[in-house]
Amino acid sequence: MSDIDNLAISTIRLLAVDQVAAANSGHPGAPLGLAQVAHIIFKNMIQNPASPDWLNKDRFVLSNGHSVALLYSLLHLAGYPLSIEDLKQFRHINSKTPGHPEAETPGIDVTTGPLGQGICNAVGLALAQEHIAARFNKPGFEISNNYTYCILGDGCMMEGVASEACSLAGHLKLSKLIAFYDDNHISIDGDTNVAFTEDVNKRYEAYGWEVLWVKDGMHDYEGITKAIEQAKKSDKPTLIRVTTIIGYGSKMQGTHSVHGAPLKADDIVQLKTHLGFDPSKSFVVPEEVYSYYKSFADSGAAAEAKWSAMLKEYSSQYPELGAELKRRIAGELPADLESILPTFTAADKAVATRKLSEGVISKLYDAVPELIGGSADLTGSNLTRAPDAVDFQPPSTGLGDYSGRYIRFGVREHGMAAICNGISAYGANFISFGATFMNFVSYAVGAVRLSALSGHHVLYVATHDSIGLGEDGPTHQPIETLTHLRSIPNLSVWRPADGNETSAAYLVALKNKHTPSVLAFSRQNLPQLAGSSIAKASKGGYVVHGSEAPVAAVVATGSEVGIAVEAAELLAKEGVNINVISLPDWFTFDAQPKDYKLSIFPDGLPVMSFEVLSTNGWSKYAHEHFGLDRFGISGKGPDVYKYFEFTGEGVAKRVKKVVDFYKGTEVKSRLNTAL
Amino acid sequence: MSDIDNLAISTIRLLAVDQVAAANSGHPGAPLGLAQVAHIIFKNMIQNPASPDWLNKDRFVLSNGHSVALLYSLLHLAGYPLSIEDLKQFRHINSKTPGHPEAETPGIDVTTGPLGQGICNAVGLALAQEHIAARFNKPGFEISNNYTYCILGDGCMMEGVASEACSLAGHLKLSKLIAFYDDNHISIDGDTNVAFTEDVNKRYEAYGWEVLWVKDGMHDYEGITKAIEQAKKSDKPTLIRVTTIIGYGSKMQGTHSVHGAPLKADDIVQLKTHLGFDPSKSFVVPEEVYSYYKSFADSGAAAEAKWSAMLKEYSSQYPELGAELKRRIAGELPADLESILPTFTAADKAVATRKLSEGVISKLYDAVPELIGGSADLTGSNLTRAPDAVDFQPPSTGLGDYSGRYIRFGVREHGMAAICNGISAYGANFISFGATFMNFVSYAVGAVRLSALSGHHVLYVATHDSIGLGEDGPTHQPIETLTHLRSIPNLSVWRPADGNETSAAYLVALKNKHTPSVLAFSRQNLPQLAGSSIAKASKGGYVVHGSEAPVAAVVATGSEVGIAVEAAELLAKEGVNINVISLPDWFTFDAQPKDYKLSIFPDGLPVMSFEVLSTNGWSKYAHEHFGLDRFGISGKGPDVYKYFEFTGEGVAKRVKKVVDFYKGTEVKSRLNTAL
Ligand SMILES: [Ca+2]
Ligand SMILES: [Ca+2]
Repeated sequence: MSDIDNLAISTIRLLAVDQVAAANSGHPGAPLGLAQVAHIIFKNMIQNPASPDWLNKDRFVLSNGHSVALLYSLLHLAGYPLSIEDLKQFRHINSKTPGHPEAETPGIDVTTGPLGQGICNAVGLALAQEHIAARFNKPGFEISNNYTYCILGDGCMMEGVASEACSLAGHLKLSKLIAFYDDNHISIDGDTNVAFTEDVNKRYEAYGWEVLWVKDGMHDYEGITKAIEQAKKSDKPTLIRVTTIIGYGSKMQGTHSVHGAPLKADDIVQLKTHLGFDPSKSFVVPEEVYSYYKSFADSGAAAEAKWSAMLKEYSSQYPELGAELKRRIAGELPADLESILPTFTAADKAVATRKLSEGVISKLYDAVPELIGGSADLTGSNLTRAPDAVDFQPPSTGLGDYSGRYIRFGVREHGMAAICNGISAYGANFISFGATFMNFVSYAVGAVRLSALSGHHVLYVATHDSIGLGEDGPTHQPIETLTHLRSIPNLSVWRPADGNETSAAYLVALKNKHTPSVLAFSRQNLPQLAGSSIAKASKGGYVVHGSEAPVAAVVATGSEVGIAVEAAELLAKEGVNINVISLPDWFTFDAQPKDYKLSIFPDGLPVMSFEVLSTNGWSKYAHEHFGLDRFGISGKGPDVYKYFEFTGEGVAKRVKKVVDFYKGTEVKSRLNTAL
Repeated sequence: MSDIDNLAISTIRLLAVDQVAAANSGHPGAPLGLAQVAHIIFKNMIQNPASPDWLNKDRFVLSNGHSVALLYSLLHLAGYPLSIEDLKQFRHINSKTPGHPEAETPGIDVTTGPLGQGICNAVGLALAQEHIAARFNKPGFEISNNYTYCILGDGCMMEGVASEACSLAGHLKLSKLIAFYDDNHISIDGDTNVAFTEDVNKRYEAYGWEVLWVKDGMHDYEGITKAIEQAKKSDKPTLIRVTTIIGYGSKMQGTHSVHGAPLKADDIVQLKTHLGFDPSKSFVVPEEVYSYYKSFADSGAAAEAKWSAMLKEYSSQYPELGAELKRRIAGELPADLESILPTFTAADKAVATRKLSEGVISKLYDAVPELIGGSADLTGSNLTRAPDAVDFQPPSTGLGDYSGRYIRFGVREHGMAAICNGISAYGANFISFGATFMNFVSYAVGAVRLSALSGHHVLYVATHDSIGLGEDGPTHQPIETLTHLRSIPNLSVWRPADGNETSAAYLVALKNKHTPSVLAFSRQNLPQLAGSSIAKASKGGYVVHGSEAPVAAVVATGSEVGIAVEAAELLAKEGVNINVISLPDWFTFDAQPKDYKLSIFPDGLPVMSFEVLSTNGWSKYAHEHFGLDRFGISGKGPDVYKYFEFTGEGVAKRVKKVVDFYKGTEVKSRLNTAL
């Protein structure tokens, strides 16, 4: 190791320590142990801090996101717009340096912190890269060849989500993924010996990874450097285990007390002194360290310039591919998507929305080449595979190739969602999708929440969306799931009632670049509604069945809308006129102007919600509820609906009670509120 | 293999096939492949079908729960109260034979179906057994020595939750756990080669398991039998990989088309003919098969009788332990728990509820020996370890022993929850608990939902329950979590506001034997309220701060109750009298008589909810809301609260708006409804 590398590493260490000290909060331990590894990674990375969105830059994911002070130090040195003043504001309100990495900060590729997610995102980033390379690279034009680097700690290693994604990464032979395992033998409960004594190397070998081990991660600079070289030569993803000492250089090094609390003042003094820094000063960066890092940035800028020139030439030789790439880099959807989406009339036959979804996906597959995804081993049930889809597989399997866009995720719902986040984070306008039964979206919500927090363009296809799935019974029938998902900020949760609404759901979901969407579909057939249209459903909610002078309204979603219309017709025969409101996506509806919303839910109209899931949340729109606040039962779908009186008659009966109850009282719209 | 074994296996196969055919729905593939394995397991198991709750019986978990027709066949033969008529009602509404195993059926130890859960439950069952043995066994008195058998398939193998629990099981050396991996190379998407090519044996060896492999699972009867013998000798948990053929004997054997759909009629005919059965008959059990299985039941009954006699003698030699065991088997809590719970007055100092929880746990640790659990590597933050707790560890580690009741789960939230379900399912009155940050309960909800569905007595300790956690920022700050959990049927979700409410939460949670509870606790200090008491809080909701002729009410939970009281005091100075309602657990409150609930939320009183999380769901009680329908921010906790105006002033300002808005209008209680 040269003197300048040594000085840079010391600088990184102390910047991290100073941030945590200034905030009086944070995690100094991992940055002290990892500064050398991270410095070597950044030395190896080809990136241009002036151009954080460059498609072919190397990616970096800090999966142990609590070590973020390390990352801020590196981003500052690398030349990203993160000043020393910003570092001083670490963990302060509205600073550019929050307590965990957030992708809004330039240079941060993915938001991390929840353990295990980052390494899965890295798998997604590496998968996206392989796909871009397979689609666009041509002889003499290596449009895509970037690496994805990742650091993960013991916590990530223990998380099941990481196991899922890493097993799949091994299967997929994502050879440009280089992950460093910070093996410091410490987690929050103390020595990892209390809970984590498995043979990690052997496990990753079992997954089909290349596994290298640098046993003296605190001193073996050459070993780390060589390991990266070796990783680049492998045809597998590589795990470089680096045995480190947490809090290296602190008086408390090697203990868990250095994990999540600032170093004491005297400890900082001895550390700075030992590293040759003035202990009376903080946030010090020697000029030569800036210059050194400037040289990396200059190389990166030169590399990007070369790449851009190549792209120009490429576009003239391959105009179609060039145009596609340009469009995708610009973040524009293909033109005129509306026109390819199926539309329906009431004369069309009843079809399950999962089947209607298959129809839409089949249209989109060719039209939207940035759409990539698959199912967690439920392809035949989720119906997510376009007929002419090619599987994303290592060509050596003979089952597909990397230009394929259908991903066989295996029974790995959480890993699937986290990988989808990584694919979306890659850029190139990627829209990723993952499918499972709606009840098992719950397995994945740790990642779904991060889709929403980060604004990843991910679609979750969630079929078998109610007790209507029938015989599989209560272990598979969602009850709480929709309420849960609707409570996550920045998440669209569609539950279309028919073909037009299914097309609308996809249309809005594709257009909402920074809002992920859950698309809930029925197992069972649903009638095509006379009152639906793509335009109306695109508002998130509308009157699908109106009456003259209605005395009440039923608001429903998905499979219940048709039943509600049936109830309205039964009631009309008895002279009770009601409206039926279809509300396929609360998120989209809530964003409409208030007068539109009040036109759907006006004062004076008692409203009953009807959805065969938890009623929790429906009071927001409705005064009364008909739903399922208990677990379901096993039986044929129609029998289960009848058992709970989820029928036209059952709805009509309850509406009459509601009408009687509110007769002569002042009924305020639930949307007419003070706050 | 003897003729009778052969005949029994054929009988099991055909009973399963006939069930699926009768239901015209279900999964015949795995039962056909696994009948031999399952028969051998049942031959080995010591159980008394007349006494399904016998503490020391061997346990069996079908982790690939979709194979349930296999299990029903076995339970019928074994002599559990499941008749041929019941088998004919497979997957019919209100039958005893729903589409996945449900623990209500006698002989079914845990509800399974959601993939990966069962093997984790098996880990919990084996853990519970080790603990009972360590606590109660004495020389000459082997009170506990039962085995836990489990079958899992490729789906379970791919799930991260299983990886988590199996890694921990290896660390814990749970040697009485014997798991069979049904290696049939098929999952729903087809050949497992499309997504799952890892080396499973190597992975389980890496976890510290004994791994055996029976390569011809369709014919090698002796191999399977011997593998069980070998497993019993190991000091590790054992994985017996059995390579099988899905749908064995069907014309479609070895393909995924035999996984989840009934066999065709002609296929059933050829299968029955081939197995020597009359193809014109269904649900046939030869008398000799009944006799054969009767002999297993007789052995089991004799074993239980011997055990009961031993327990009698044990109780006289070890009266204290004997009494404890008797009490626990009877399902009774220790007497007089109320008296040991801490109580507080307003004069007591402000304390974080997580700290108050630690105080309660410390009291309970000695008083309630069936309480066992720990944290997912956040012990020092969750504060879940009683000062005199002993770790549950293999004695060889020197870190504890199996009589210990503090479990170091590692960073494995989902596995933790699923293991807790298994511990609770063991019986012996076990109350298990698992702790993490509230935001990461979301990682575990696949298992939390099953706690609720099965009525497992599990406590989830969820600290850092809001943006009040501060600097860790939005990746760690829960928003949707409470709404989500409150939407799960049969789940108590406590968010106590102070010491008395914390004691009440534990008291109710301990007494609710068949309802799991989430206990949400603050990171930050909260004042002791003048108006709280254990008795009042035990109703789930009450007026904590009343006023003469209130013009509005604020309903709040946890950390927001004290702020609401502050707001009430500010408003009182301006002549605006309001009530403050504390609603620590919706589930408990909702179960109160309607007149009590209406006394808290009477007609005429506009109510504003105040909780610094998603407002979704609060319309059930409140007309207006003050909460957080966006992600949080990183900063010091008090700064974050101020930023969003979550202060006495901020609340008071909004209450005044609410009072103005509803002045002169007819305000109906949200609980005064038609349905
Ligand atoms: Ca560590
Ligand atoms: Ca299989």
